[in-house]
Amino acid sequence: MFDKVAIVGPGLIGGSMGMALRKRGLAGTVVGIGRRQESLNKALEVGAIDQATLDVEQGVTDADLVVLATPIGTFEELTVRIAEFLRPESLLTDVASSKARVVATITAALRRRPDVAYIPSHPMAGSEQSGPLAASADLFEGCICIITPLTNTFPESKSQIVSMWQALGARVVSVSPQAHDRTVARISHLPHLAAAALVAALDDADMKLCGKGLLDTTRVASASTDLWMDICETNRDQVHEALKAYIALLQELATSLEGGDLGQLRSMLETAKDRRDRLVGDRQEHRTP
Amino acid sequence: MFDKVAIVGPGLIGGSMGMALRKRGLAGTVVGIGRRQESLNKALEVGAIDQATLDVEQGVTDADLVVLATPIGTFEELTVRIAEFLRPESLLTDVASSKARVVATITAALRRRPDVAYIPSHPMAGSEQSGPLAASADLFEGCICIITPLTNTFPESKSQIVSMWQALGARVVSVSPQAHDRTVARISHLPHLAAAALVAALDDADMKLCGKGLLDTTRVASASTDLWMDICETNRDQVHEALKAYIALLQELATSLEGGDLGQLRSMLETAKDRRDRLVGDRQEHRTP
Repeated sequence: MFDKVAIVGPGLIGGSMGMALRKRGLAGTVVGIGRRQESLNKALEVGAIDQATLDVEQGVTDADLVVLATPIGTFEELTVRIAEFLRPESLLTDVASSKARVVATITAALRRRPDVAYIPSHPMAGSEQSGPLAASADLFEGCICIITPLTNTFPESKSQIVSMWQALGARVVSVSPQAHDRTVARISHLPHLAAAALVAALDDADMKLCGKGLLDTTRVASASTDLWMDICETNRDQVHEALKAYIALLQELATSLEGGDLGQLRSMLETAKDRRDRLVGDRQEHRTP
Repeated sequence: MFDKVAIVGPGLIGGSMGMALRKRGLAGTVVGIGRRQESLNKALEVGAIDQATLDVEQGVTDADLVVLATPIGTFEELTVRIAEFLRPESLLTDVASSKARVVATITAALRRRPDVAYIPSHPMAGSEQSGPLAASADLFEGCICIITPLTNTFPESKSQIVSMWQALGARVVSVSPQAHDRTVARISHLPHLAAAALVAALDDADMKLCGKGLLDTTRVASASTDLWMDICETNRDQVHEALKAYIALLQELATSLEGGDLGQLRSMLETAKDRRDRLVGDRQEHRTP
């Protein structure tokens, strides 16, 4: 599928992409690009990449596909640096969890390279762990990967990215960057903050009695703080909107509990059960046999 | 350990107790008591009980241990009915998820039987499923079981209940009914409502993009609505307190997001990560090798 793939930041997501491409024979060479040799050595050891370099310009040269898998805050400088080294008609993608600002930043940095197809990706996979040692060739099996292609993207380039994610096991959905940001604020970013706030509020007496249920509900709270600050900063408006709506809903529940009329609570619990049961059903339907 | 154990309501929790006691050879006979023969037949089929009866008075007669594992709303009538049939010096426990009101109700119904040792239990185990077909002999392995013994409970009776839960694999913690209710409101009941509210707020566009992360975070939302209404009704004040505190914390986050000063958000995420990592560590320490 690709002669050379360059992965800038072969950590959990980037490293898993490298492993998955290599395992499936979809890339001739996977080059990992990083800022610390130690981290690149780990990526080499676990088989996430074939080659490693600290030189990002050299690393992306001649690549058919370049993947930006570093923190969002690095995208602007990185894209400016690599812009003139990208191969004509090559593909560029990122794997960031927020899109509108990222797309604006990267598009601006690529304005002199209309021959490079930039197609943003957001594979909805992960773990509360991070780094190349947590990478897995099967991370994307059964996950949803959202892409937010620009309106002027060539259909062939879009097909190529779609085929790649599908080959790694993902179900690809294409939406606008704005729709992406609104939805992930509601299905991913807000749930993260909600879980973190539950855990942050615990005192020592609570901690002594915590069981498996709470550990499951709050698994995401163990994720990297820097990653989540990045996400909340770059998708701030949508996260704020989602949080306000959530607070309003909880406030209605509090009023219902206080007044002793629990009809609204029951109706909310029933809606939630119905929706989640549908989600579980949907996922089973889409699972590859 | 027991010649005869009577389990009123051998569903997920009651059935798992029966299975676990039988598997470990801790009960001569386990009698399941229910209102529907069909459900009792399932409990017999899966090996949760040895015998089944629809007659609760007959079922509890001569039992060394009687377990109330029916919905909380049934406790008063049930205890009044069985009170005079309980064996002198026998043990009675319940497995309800809220305690202060339950303890008051059952204690009042037992006022003419000071010779029966009532020791409330709350095994913090479960699943989003219910019924005897979801029961498992290992459900309590590694779980925390909270007991809230009355101040006049004989030490021997308390030891017996503690030994039983430990034999089923649980770690037993003893607190007052009020402390229990405050803590479980914060570590179990509020997280349930918080997860349900996240799912209830989703629209169709969100549902299409939902991944594994949200399914994990909201697993509890698939649980039985009736069970959770029971819990919220009987622990209403504490759940309301916990919910109010949670809303206040989320409101601070919303203000932090709106103002663009994300220092408070970072500090909350760091606290949450630290607490959850400690919880995971604690559980690994206590795991039986």
